[in-house]
Amino acid sequence: MAGNGIVLFGHGARDPEWAGPMKRVAARIAERSPQTPVQVAFMEFLSPTLDEAVDTLVAAGCTELTVVPVFLAQGGHLKRDVPLLVETAAERHPQARLRLVTAAGEADGVVEAIADYALGLA
Amino acid sequence: MAGNGIVLFGHGARDPEWAGPMKRVAARIAERSPQTPVQVAFMEFLSPTLDEAVDTLVAAGCTELTVVPVFLAQGGHLKRDVPLLVETAAERHPQARLRLVTAAGEADGVVEAIADYALGLA
Repeated sequence: MAGNGIVLFGHGARDPEWAGPMKRVAARIAERSPQTPVQVAFMEFLSPTLDEAVDTLVAAGCTELTVVPVFLAQGGHLKRDVPLLVETAAERHPQARLRLVTAAGEADGVVEAIADYALGLA
Repeated sequence: MAGNGIVLFGHGARDPEWAGPMKRVAARIAERSPQTPVQVAFMEFLSPTLDEAVDTLVAAGCTELTVVPVFLAQGGHLKRDVPLLVETAAERHPQARLRLVTAAGEADGVVEAIADYALGLA
């Protein structure tokens, strides 16, 4: 029973290398919690889409999906577009529960890690 | 002598709340290293611009400026647009040295902090 799964949902960009850090986050989650299925997904330019990633996790047996926006902040996309995308994905899988959390960039630990990085270089 | 300063340079967004996490990063840097002047700056939508932030830090006596891109990854903006903006700002201040570093989202500590955040919620 897979149970809980994670979708790392990012904006996407024309440059495929843009996905590198999100893939590294997914790899770290897989290393640290091998029992938690994790998928990346993108709003535009890159694949898979949110729908595709959710399909994959539900097919793997996940019934509780946490959609983690890998965005720097709660801007317009997270206030408007992303909730609608999550709602649409949820309607396609009534047996699963999808939960959209706050943008990763708003987390204290991420703010502190960016400060660490800047102070380590200045 | 102020010496080293930090510019936290972000993409910007129409929603002014988008700047919240970057301002929190700046506040943490100021708390942890009060001798290091720090400014936020934005590529579009929000102010100040990179030029304005650099002017402020040079006026405060900084001669070495580290421009830290608060971007999730090294995508097209950081490969093309941002280096040109830094070059333009540097040309206006020949007495100062501006150094553009890699996107914060590429840093191991930031990748780990995003994984921490996701695992803490799933």
